[in-house]
Amino acid sequence: MIAPRQPLAVSLGDPAGIGPELIAEIWNQRGSLDLPPFAVVGGAGVLRGAAKTRGIDLPVAVIDRADEAIAAFADALPVIGGEDAPYTPGQPEEAGARLALASLEQATALARDGAAGGIVTLPVAKSRLASVGFAHPGQTEYLAASCGRQAGDAVMMLAGPSLRAVPVTVHCPLAQVAQLLNEDMICAKARTVHRALNSDFGIEQPRLALAGLNPHAGEDGRMGSEEAEIIAPAIARLRAEGIDASGPYPADALFTHRARETYDVALAMYHDQALIPLKALDFDEGVNVTLGLPLVRTSPDHGTAFAIAGEGIADPGATIAALRMAGEMAARRAGG
Amino acid sequence: MIAPRQPLAVSLGDPAGIGPELIAEIWNQRGSLDLPPFAVVGGAGVLRGAAKTRGIDLPVAVIDRADEAIAAFADALPVIGGEDAPYTPGQPEEAGARLALASLEQATALARDGAAGGIVTLPVAKSRLASVGFAHPGQTEYLAASCGRQAGDAVMMLAGPSLRAVPVTVHCPLAQVAQLLNEDMICAKARTVHRALNSDFGIEQPRLALAGLNPHAGEDGRMGSEEAEIIAPAIARLRAEGIDASGPYPADALFTHRARETYDVALAMYHDQALIPLKALDFDEGVNVTLGLPLVRTSPDHGTAFAIAGEGIADPGATIAALRMAGEMAARRAGG
Repeated sequence: MIAPRQPLAVSLGDPAGIGPELIAEIWNQRGSLDLPPFAVVGGAGVLRGAAKTRGIDLPVAVIDRADEAIAAFADALPVIGGEDAPYTPGQPEEAGARLALASLEQATALARDGAAGGIVTLPVAKSRLASVGFAHPGQTEYLAASCGRQAGDAVMMLAGPSLRAVPVTVHCPLAQVAQLLNEDMICAKARTVHRALNSDFGIEQPRLALAGLNPHAGEDGRMGSEEAEIIAPAIARLRAEGIDASGPYPADALFTHRARETYDVALAMYHDQALIPLKALDFDEGVNVTLGLPLVRTSPDHGTAFAIAGEGIADPGATIAALRMAGEMAARRAGG
Repeated sequence: MIAPRQPLAVSLGDPAGIGPELIAEIWNQRGSLDLPPFAVVGGAGVLRGAAKTRGIDLPVAVIDRADEAIAAFADALPVIGGEDAPYTPGQPEEAGARLALASLEQATALARDGAAGGIVTLPVAKSRLASVGFAHPGQTEYLAASCGRQAGDAVMMLAGPSLRAVPVTVHCPLAQVAQLLNEDMICAKARTVHRALNSDFGIEQPRLALAGLNPHAGEDGRMGSEEAEIIAPAIARLRAEGIDASGPYPADALFTHRARETYDVALAMYHDQALIPLKALDFDEGVNVTLGLPLVRTSPDHGTAFAIAGEGIADPGATIAALRMAGEMAARRAGG
């Protein structure tokens, strides 16, 4: 793979979740995985404890500056800074939430300031972060704000081996989707996706396939009019701008194995229209990528999984995929 | 497989679609496929023509009564009755629509009267059927009416090797789903599904997993209230009746490979919530099954595909699966 010039900064996530054991496991398997070098921000003790639950005696190199990680990575898991908390798998605590927040803030600053090539965020529990004063709906909104951008500038893309998918509306009740959807929103997201697939993923002319909103994409207006009134006009506008957008396609036809070969990214009109096929097809390798920000950010597309933390069974596949994707995006941005 | 006592009646579907060539191909491969005996209703000339496009010189046995199909099946494709039309692949014509309608009506009558073990419907074009006087929204509604039932008594289930899924609301605009959904509708569909999986699919205590409507199943009311107000009460009522219903689960978590191992059928709240994962996972083997009617009915879960009819490339997998499923359902109903 293309190697970035700076290490990736990994935020620890909730120490009681599966994030720490996964990153320890992945560092331990670094010899057989093709990975960009990375450093975890904080949590040396948490990481040692989490490694033990998977039978790993983890060497940790506590470092002060991100650039020391490159040399340290071969022999030890580099950990930036001395912030730490007790390791209590499956039992989220306030000290852990404070550590998760500090780690996220420092990792973000490293990526924003160019000391890290990008940030890979391990899973947090939103309600736990909120309980220690985190005022953003999620990590993506925080990242946008920390770059001086609007939350709407950050576009969530889900990516796995079978599919890339972007929901145009995201965290709203299903009953509000049709009211919220509009031509400008679709065009704005599509433009961001187009630019990012080009610059960060190396796809010269990305093919965007847009889903319809209604069953059978409305079946010529018999089951809904948003295709004709909103989605088709947005596609026409995008095409006039030189973007290879097509559709609206019936959503159930858009994710068949043959259909998936015809586009580089699917634009879904609502959360589950994108997330259902991604998780059905690629759950263990699904990556959540934030597009449209000055910094590179990826994340495994799963949660803290408190119920299985510390049991040694959590699958590292999605975190491996998130590290690789961030490394490749960072390298492309650096012109590598 | 379990063999039914009567042959299955196959309705021809639109003669210009891919149905005729698929059924000819399947009969031709009967030696290597484990199939229940079947007879096509009408279209002997269409079938011979369609077979030729796949390089098959098809022997046809025109018969008068369904029970003659069992003996005829080994040496020729049994065709019941002399109705026919020109074979014009990819070019739907009025004569073809009339033949499709006649075939559907006769196949239904054979299954309803017990001469056929069940009916397998090949794809029709709804607008073409409507143009020759068919007054029902689709074949499923017609079948319900022909059995003296309400359209709502017929429940559509999609079934493939990876998943069985039932949409609770079906052909309505997405914006109307939340208003249409109610506790009684969910319970009625769930009871039909429970009974059918037991009687027709041989699952003693079927496990029903119900999806939420909103992202993250509403996330404790932060993204919608239908889970707490409608779906959870429906599940409680079903459980009180002794039905193994669970949920509401976040829809994007419900179709991962691990989640799919925990239930026998997923109840989705809207069309694409069921159809997206089914077609993403099982497109070439997806079967549309009608539950809740006195007659057994299955169908391949794809359309007429006029664009590729006669080109010899249409995949027979879903039709093979539909024949097998109808055969097994018929055998179970007959106590076989």
